[in-house]
Amino acid sequence: MDRSDQFTVGIDFGTLSGRAVVVRVSDGAEVGSAVHDYAHAVLDTRLPVGAVTLPPDWALQVPRDYLDVVAHAVPEAVRRAGIDPSQVIGLGTDFTACTVLPVLADGTPLCELPEYAERPHAYVKLWKHHAAQAQADRINELAHGRGESWIARYGGLISSEWEFAKGLQLLEEDPELYGRADLFVEAADWIVWQLTGRYVRNACTAGYKGIYQDGRYPDRDFLSALNPGFAAFAEDKLAADIGQLGDAAGGLTEEMAALTGLPVGTAVAVGNVDAHVTAPAARATEPGQMVAIMGTSTCHVMSHDVLVEVPGMCGVVDGGIVAGSWGYEAGQSGVGDIFGWFTRTSVPAAYAEAAEAAGVSVHEHLTGLAAQQAVGEHGLVALDWHSGNRSVLVDHELSGAVIGLTLTTRPEDVYRALLESTAFGTRVIVETFRASGVPVEEFVVAGGLAQNALLMQIYADVTRLPLSLIDSEQGPALGSAIHAAVAAGVYPDVPTAAKSMGKVRKGVFVPDEGRAQAYDELFEQYVALHDHFGRATTTMRRLKAIRRAAVANREGT
Amino acid sequence: MDRSDQFTVGIDFGTLSGRAVVVRVSDGAEVGSAVHDYAHAVLDTRLPVGAVTLPPDWALQVPRDYLDVVAHAVPEAVRRAGIDPSQVIGLGTDFTACTVLPVLADGTPLCELPEYAERPHAYVKLWKHHAAQAQADRINELAHGRGESWIARYGGLISSEWEFAKGLQLLEEDPELYGRADLFVEAADWIVWQLTGRYVRNACTAGYKGIYQDGRYPDRDFLSALNPGFAAFAEDKLAADIGQLGDAAGGLTEEMAALTGLPVGTAVAVGNVDAHVTAPAARATEPGQMVAIMGTSTCHVMSHDVLVEVPGMCGVVDGGIVAGSWGYEAGQSGVGDIFGWFTRTSVPAAYAEAAEAAGVSVHEHLTGLAAQQAVGEHGLVALDWHSGNRSVLVDHELSGAVIGLTLTTRPEDVYRALLESTAFGTRVIVETFRASGVPVEEFVVAGGLAQNALLMQIYADVTRLPLSLIDSEQGPALGSAIHAAVAAGVYPDVPTAAKSMGKVRKGVFVPDEGRAQAYDELFEQYVALHDHFGRATTTMRRLKAIRRAAVANREGT
Repeated sequence: MDRSDQFTVGIDFGTLSGRAVVVRVSDGAEVGSAVHDYAHAVLDTRLPVGAVTLPPDWALQVPRDYLDVVAHAVPEAVRRAGIDPSQVIGLGTDFTACTVLPVLADGTPLCELPEYAERPHAYVKLWKHHAAQAQADRINELAHGRGESWIARYGGLISSEWEFAKGLQLLEEDPELYGRADLFVEAADWIVWQLTGRYVRNACTAGYKGIYQDGRYPDRDFLSALNPGFAAFAEDKLAADIGQLGDAAGGLTEEMAALTGLPVGTAVAVGNVDAHVTAPAARATEPGQMVAIMGTSTCHVMSHDVLVEVPGMCGVVDGGIVAGSWGYEAGQSGVGDIFGWFTRTSVPAAYAEAAEAAGVSVHEHLTGLAAQQAVGEHGLVALDWHSGNRSVLVDHELSGAVIGLTLTTRPEDVYRALLESTAFGTRVIVETFRASGVPVEEFVVAGGLAQNALLMQIYADVTRLPLSLIDSEQGPALGSAIHAAVAAGVYPDVPTAAKSMGKVRKGVFVPDEGRAQAYDELFEQYVALHDHFGRATTTMRRLKAIRRAAVANREGT
Repeated sequence: MDRSDQFTVGIDFGTLSGRAVVVRVSDGAEVGSAVHDYAHAVLDTRLPVGAVTLPPDWALQVPRDYLDVVAHAVPEAVRRAGIDPSQVIGLGTDFTACTVLPVLADGTPLCELPEYAERPHAYVKLWKHHAAQAQADRINELAHGRGESWIARYGGLISSEWEFAKGLQLLEEDPELYGRADLFVEAADWIVWQLTGRYVRNACTAGYKGIYQDGRYPDRDFLSALNPGFAAFAEDKLAADIGQLGDAAGGLTEEMAALTGLPVGTAVAVGNVDAHVTAPAARATEPGQMVAIMGTSTCHVMSHDVLVEVPGMCGVVDGGIVAGSWGYEAGQSGVGDIFGWFTRTSVPAAYAEAAEAAGVSVHEHLTGLAAQQAVGEHGLVALDWHSGNRSVLVDHELSGAVIGLTLTTRPEDVYRALLESTAFGTRVIVETFRASGVPVEEFVVAGGLAQNALLMQIYADVTRLPLSLIDSEQGPALGSAIHAAVAAGVYPDVPTAAKSMGKVRKGVFVPDEGRAQAYDELFEQYVALHDHFGRATTTMRRLKAIRRAAVANREGT
């Protein structure tokens, strides 16, 4: 059978739905797709049964919803593609992360046991479950106190979103359930386990979310110092065979073949993470190619031949993006959500009315007005820290700022300054990588914000990098389909598969030297503010402390 | 005749209209008032005749409009008071300043000469005429370069609004008219000249706007270094008899008596400035009583026994508020206009709709929401420099800032932070006066912002000063009526008259120690930002320079 008659299916498990895409292995053509919404979406106030209400910052999911995606979206996508199911030779998946669940030794989620259906800790903890901050704080304090070598691989900060914080929360808040859980599994791996009947831990989440470095997890001493009951967490609940990205975890089981309509034994790739799997989809797996998945926040991923500890990165993992290379990840905590917040809270009625009259969104209206300005004309510089700063300062006590306001400042001025501030934040990351010896030569954008041409041009001008855009609206699913093609043996490795199947438009935006020079001046001011508020002073940290004290005081009265 | 049968008339010449108020001399009762709008309002785009258009930043007026106020508002106010015109024993006036006009030796404005009717420089230059900045810059540079002693009396900065800058602009842009002008007269004195037939220069504007210090103007050497043709400006065009505040300039002329219906020879007080004349109206002429006239901007006036040079004040003038005391003036360039700007540009439709549904203004709606918060709960601190900073930094290249923004920041949070920032700005002024040896013990508020109870309470809490409110909605006119009573000989001096005629509600807002302590923490952060942006760095100055270059560049292309 010719490659042009062969197809793989990529399934992207997002926050609210899963998307299956059928992709031709010869050229990456996306020939059919289907989306299936999670019936329970995100549980953030109550469980599906009973009267239990969830505290603030909780975010849970129901694992059965993931299987419903497999059952509905996959056959529908194949049907829409107009191909015969027998032409599908591989299946790949990617997931939000760190999204984890406690299961029995056979993979049964604890929440599916009737006796635990009303126990919040029995459910999937979604990536944005933020109720384990106290545990994360203790992990970080202890790691720095003991000088653990692995902490530097995470820019000095283990997130409350990750496996150890969520696992420790489980132990401390529901010890009975913790004891009952044989394993604490990434959903990315659980779904592959369901498809193949084999539990393989993917190298990506093991490294980025599970603190698996140099073949080891944090040791018993460390874990028992956190909590004596936690001593065996890594060896008992986490440890499993590690699968490299692009490897086959196994073949489709009979049950899953029946569910999807695909052939029994179809190759299934090891699990992956939505951001990281996007790199091959954008044909950007070489050193120097920084891929930015730009949405409400931005995730930067990039491969490099050697290990370097870059200040403030989210993580560096052996084989974390492509097997055989070191995968680097960095991030900006807030990007699109800052623009969304501004549009929602800070734009007067006249703008909303003008946008409506023109048949565009308020974002588009503001962008159109902002685009008419010369660089620096608004006289503003902003700090893009409304959700804190991940890279390179790793400080979530930081906050946003706008400097340069006058009585003639208009909404489009502040909007443009906010767009620029995120570009400056990216430039700080790029320059930090370079200064650490990790070159960045191309900036490849995926995600919803790639639609905003003004924003893209600003990024090109500010970073002086050529901007390429992924040429797919289904980047993660395409990336999963690429991994599936490698798992099926069509290509020898992911970079080779990406060359045929990945899709990118090169150099769509190139820096303009005149504007770049004008931005240099603004960037100099941004860096001055960045270092002042991020390093030299405690102003923002004090403001958060004052705020917390005020709220606590008020609730106490 | 008993004092309770005697009345004076105060006339307050504002920016768009003049207001006459009839006041009983025994107790300050305001028994009748009338307002008359200036027919020509402010000329900022064209002259009343011809096709001449005015450049940006120009603001002119027509002197005949002032006489129309005398002709219409005065008799109408007397009629409404229900008194006999013969019961009026004195007339006092106050004016915006520095508002100046070129006249012939007999007081005829040049703009009333038919041959000059189409010459912009022939008209009154209103206080907010800002087209003489280039001249002001040269005055300041030269004064500092030569080490002129008088520059310290003005916090180091002569404003573009004042007499020397406007006079130099007249010379350099229309030298023929400059030559034709026998005198360059404050409107405050011109109106008194019209009423009495005598030109007396009031000590207040001579000092604050005319650089008249220690009995001298800037000398010929200084003036000819600015421009050889300007050497005799002070001695030829400005110099005149100085009248102390409360003195009688003369009696009403026959012509003016006919125009107003008042008795010939009625005592007319020397001219005054609207802000300064408010101090006696609020019964606040003693050392330690700081009067703040709070509107779009805030003007602070306070008397003290001795001369001290307070860093960043607007001016200190012998007899500038009350004859025999040193009058101190300080200012905040933007206050109410910052709140107005925010309300106009940064509040979404839902707030405007909620305000409308509740039948309140957007200001009132935001204030109501902001008032529900504990101190510090919003997590923000702002800098109130949207119009630059007059006191104590004297730097109009500074700009506004908001620090501490998050994705949960709401419009009422920023609004409250802006209210607080102006209170912090006031506290810096109060503390600077104290540190210079000029005590401040009471804060007396006049002006429109006194209506906002939340704002007033914030000022009391932030400054830890008791707040008194003037008990008149016509403060300047009442102050002028008080000066008229002194000019008429009813009272020996202005402070004595103020005790009987001034009206104040004492201690309406008192500091709450708990909130004051909470504000101390926020103020500490404000001061850190104030000193960082105002003193340590050039960030804001650079932003303005970048902005100007961007605009210039753009206009050039």
